[in-house]
Amino acid sequence: MVQIPLADLNAASKADFVAALANVVEYSPWIAEQIAAQRPFAGINQLHAALVAAIQAAEPDAQLALIRAHPDLANKTQRAAGLTAESAEEQNSAGLDRLSEAEYAAFERVNNAYREKFGFPYIVCVRRHTRDSVLRDFETRLRNIAKTETRRAIEEIGRISALRLDQLVVADDKLKVHGRLSTHVLDNHAGKPAAGIAVELIELAALGESRVIARNVTNADGRTDQPLIGGRPLPTGRYELRFSVAKYYAERNVQLSDPPFLDEIPVRFAISEPESHYHVPLLVTPWSYSTYRGS
Amino acid sequence: MVQIPLADLNAASKADFVAALANVVEYSPWIAEQIAAQRPFAGINQLHAALVAAIQAAEPDAQLALIRAHPDLANKTQRAAGLTAESAEEQNSAGLDRLSEAEYAAFERVNNAYREKFGFPYIVCVRRHTRDSVLRDFETRLRNIAKTETRRAIEEIGRISALRLDQLVVADDKLKVHGRLSTHVLDNHAGKPAAGIAVELIELAALGESRVIARNVTNADGRTDQPLIGGRPLPTGRYELRFSVAKYYAERNVQLSDPPFLDEIPVRFAISEPESHYHVPLLVTPWSYSTYRGS
Amino acid sequence: MVQIPLADLNAASKADFVAALANVVEYSPWIAEQIAAQRPFAGINQLHAALVAAIQAAEPDAQLALIRAHPDLANKTQRAAGLTAESAEEQNSAGLDRLSEAEYAAFERVNNAYREKFGFPYIVCVRRHTRDSVLRDFETRLRNIAKTETRRAIEEIGRISALRLDQLVVADDKLKVHGRLSTHVLDNHAGKPAAGIAVELIELAALGESRVIARNVTNADGRTDQPLIGGRPLPTGRYELRFSVAKYYAERNVQLSDPPFLDEIPVRFAISEPESHYHVPLLVTPWSYSTYRGS
Amino acid sequence: MVQIPLADLNAASKADFVAALANVVEYSPWIAEQIAAQRPFAGINQLHAALVAAIQAAEPDAQLALIRAHPDLANKTQRAAGLTAESAEEQNSAGLDRLSEAEYAAFERVNNAYREKFGFPYIVCVRRHTRDSVLRDFETRLRNIAKTETRRAIEEIGRISALRLDQLVVADDKLKVHGRLSTHVLDNHAGKPAAGIAVELIELAALGESRVIARNVTNADGRTDQPLIGGRPLPTGRYELRFSVAKYYAERNVQLSDPPFLDEIPVRFAISEPESHYHVPLLVTPWSYSTYRGS
Repeated sequence: MVQIPLADLNAASKADFVAALANVVEYSPWIAEQIAAQRPFAGINQLHAALVAAIQAAEPDAQLALIRAHPDLANKTQRAAGLTAESAEEQNSAGLDRLSEAEYAAFERVNNAYREKFGFPYIVCVRRHTRDSVLRDFETRLRNIAKTETRRAIEEIGRISALRLDQLVVADDKLKVHGRLSTHVLDNHAGKPAAGIAVELIELAALGESRVIARNVTNADGRTDQPLIGGRPLPTGRYELRFSVAKYYAERNVQLSDPPFLDEIPVRFAISEPESHYHVPLLVTPWSYSTYRGS
Repeated sequence: MVQIPLADLNAASKADFVAALANVVEYSPWIAEQIAAQRPFAGINQLHAALVAAIQAAEPDAQLALIRAHPDLANKTQRAAGLTAESAEEQNSAGLDRLSEAEYAAFERVNNAYREKFGFPYIVCVRRHTRDSVLRDFETRLRNIAKTETRRAIEEIGRISALRLDQLVVADDKLKVHGRLSTHVLDNHAGKPAAGIAVELIELAALGESRVIARNVTNADGRTDQPLIGGRPLPTGRYELRFSVAKYYAERNVQLSDPPFLDEIPVRFAISEPESHYHVPLLVTPWSYSTYRGS
Repeated sequence: MVQIPLADLNAASKADFVAALANVVEYSPWIAEQIAAQRPFAGINQLHAALVAAIQAAEPDAQLALIRAHPDLANKTQRAAGLTAESAEEQNSAGLDRLSEAEYAAFERVNNAYREKFGFPYIVCVRRHTRDSVLRDFETRLRNIAKTETRRAIEEIGRISALRLDQLVVADDKLKVHGRLSTHVLDNHAGKPAAGIAVELIELAALGESRVIARNVTNADGRTDQPLIGGRPLPTGRYELRFSVAKYYAERNVQLSDPPFLDEIPVRFAISEPESHYHVPLLVTPWSYSTYRGS
Repeated sequence: MVQIPLADLNAASKADFVAALANVVEYSPWIAEQIAAQRPFAGINQLHAALVAAIQAAEPDAQLALIRAHPDLANKTQRAAGLTAESAEEQNSAGLDRLSEAEYAAFERVNNAYREKFGFPYIVCVRRHTRDSVLRDFETRLRNIAKTETRRAIEEIGRISALRLDQLVVADDKLKVHGRLSTHVLDNHAGKPAAGIAVELIELAALGESRVIARNVTNADGRTDQPLIGGRPLPTGRYELRFSVAKYYAERNVQLSDPPFLDEIPVRFAISEPESHYHVPLLVTPWSYSTYRGS
């Protein structure tokens, strides 16, 4: 995606400014139009705050129209008819294009229940979720009253627009929309970082299939060169890290039992704060290990 | 099963002694006959040693006949035709009566390959194995030369007879044929044993289905009232313990994230010494845990 | 000390019963006299409860006399004049016969302040305390009002008498007056209990000298054959365990740095519940260790 | 100290070059003279290598004169007579200007024994040592033969000159002469870095007094803003880190026992590789802690 410097947005004609931000909020150029006169923006946070303020200041009817401009999540018919590029990419990032039949059925059921109760589609910033957590969120929000859900929908639109702005606009400041998942393996048997340990990250699913979402090998410092998840929000959900420790020790000629007491070590944990740093290290010997939420 | 005091065996007529031990070694009363004159035995270890010595002192032909008196493992036809009660119980204890089709096929393949190569059935003390480890053992031993396998078969007959004696005879001393698997959960958040934690023990399988083999709840001292496996050899193989910690902390009103960072904690490990004590404890807080081979 | 079966106390003449219990409460035979008629006692707990009830039911004047029958703690003049054997042994057990000059001065100061404020001596069950914790308790209680202190003094007399009864009387039930301090060393480098580790227990002192109160070596199971403290209350206070791990690993030919990263490992902790079990284990490799309040 | 850019040294007259490096090797300008013609040096590592090569290529007599140009360690008479500024600073950095009487006596004893055996002073790069480790090194080297000690002395002169160059010369590359000692405190009770924990670093001494060499407080990430030791070699020796955890938990209203089970946690460890990174973290709850050599 081509990125636009904030300075250019500040200097552009009103028409160009509106065109540039056209898809930051789904099918709703009127928001960019409203805030164009507030330029120049000192930073991307100020730009985003203006955009959110414009939505919150809008008349109830305009807000409702804005909400209704959004597609259903994981809706086959709408996908076939075509989503905006942004919506498609966001839904795919959460795996909504690879749902099992059971998951499709679950999504359809809650979509319909939600629409029936509130008269507008369920909106969520899917990049902050796994399939499982979207379904949990759906069910929680279905119990709300309409007024609460209007507010929640607008909050989610704010989050979606923050992520779209983050991808679109280059500025000196940064929106706080990214999280980071990292690990570190320390070999307490040798008193050194464990280099060359294969690590897999699996997204666990209640209904559909769990899937490996990252494969990596620890470097000389026992870390992965890149975070396991980075440069985006951490999807709320349950995960498993798998560390191949028997192979590591066997390669270093450490005597192991047969089969080795510890082989592939699974560490299951959940992410609940998408914009945070989760550090999940492993301290290991052939006979013991520890893990914890680190920093 | 009715148990016989060693004193009664020592005092019995030769015929009664032989009859009592008839099934300690599969279809081979001549062994008991040979050792009857060595009575009285000071203990069950001495009795078992005499029995093993008699087998090892036997002529090669007699040894071969003894080996051939044993059934194939997991052989459907033989099962239908009837095994001795002892054989049937032993095979069932390792889950050989509940094999998946893939496992049956694997057993049949190795049984046939083994018989073809050595001219006698593969013998293993199945109570010391899981389905997975029987198959691994099969494949290792298939590479041996015939002389090694004759020796190995007799060793396994010695182990089988030890376990049958252990069940049959009451004496002051004990044969060292049992292992023990235990756990202990310590709540490092509260500085107390974690009481009321649900614990599951799963036998992991490479080919067939993994299955829960024990369900328990920790007592006031954070332990289970009974060992997870006890009173028998620990089957060599891979296992997973699952500890329900989020539920435990939620019930104690400890504030957790949503979803909780740690929920069901899986601890995977292997057993390689069937007659040993494996202690696999968990030290836990809502944000960290440690496990190790304890004692 | 000669112990008396409870049955004998139950069957004795009133005079013998009173004589036998003469020193259970300092210079106060009237208490035993009062409860003699309640015999037979079903157990030692019932006997102790009767004794405590008699004290609590006594007139204020009798209670005050009882309190005043007790000696000052660590008073040189009274020690020279002679304490009851029981008082002397109790005070010595807390090291009050081996005070530094600074500690003597501190005890004298608080003794005098206490007597001046309340008109009776400070009473505490010294077997439940270290020198440090006695001084802390002194200072806390000095701030109380007289009525509270009368109640506290009687509580402490109840505790003292429980310990004296526990030493004097043999019964089927036990008074809950003992604690236990134990340790366990696990070698996570080898996956085994650490046998042959030298362990020292030091009572830490704020004013006087810290002193080694137990020396031990771990057995084949990584534990000490006897608890580090047992068969008595655990004195409230601060302690340090010292584990000689470099020597242990060097003897097992594990390669260490020079000087070894870990050598003598100190673990400092405090005891605050004298009648509890404190288990303070060490999980260790040449490069790491963990400790915790276990069970 | 005024630092000189390497480019300036490369461009300087021979006389200025020699003058600038005058004190890099104690009283021995001939070394700088010898290597002046090799300029320009591509980096500080190349410059240092040239200097070491010149010493190693020198005639035995010149090497011996170089060794003899060095002062005794911790010699009161020489200190009074005046050391070079470099020597004085180096000796002081190891605390050799603050020795106890027992330490002075020990240094004098080994100095004399060494001079008597080898005919030249004991040379060591003191910045890489504590008082204890200097004495240990002394005793080890006293057992060597003269030839070995000549080689060892020249090695140490190489290390001393590297540290002096590192302070004197600014270049694009760096000599690998610094180590780093860091810590990190994670609160496993709250699942967060432990901010605001007071940390003390103590250098332990066998003969003299142990002394606090750093005091710090953990920041929001549970680390210290500056390494506990950095920008210099880590002196080989034994250390204790002390973490004030009871105060930390009390301030956060976590319920503790009285006295708290854990209060000041001491972690004792040794440094044996002066140019390495030692990371010694603490994972802690009110009831447990772990530490290890991290990275």
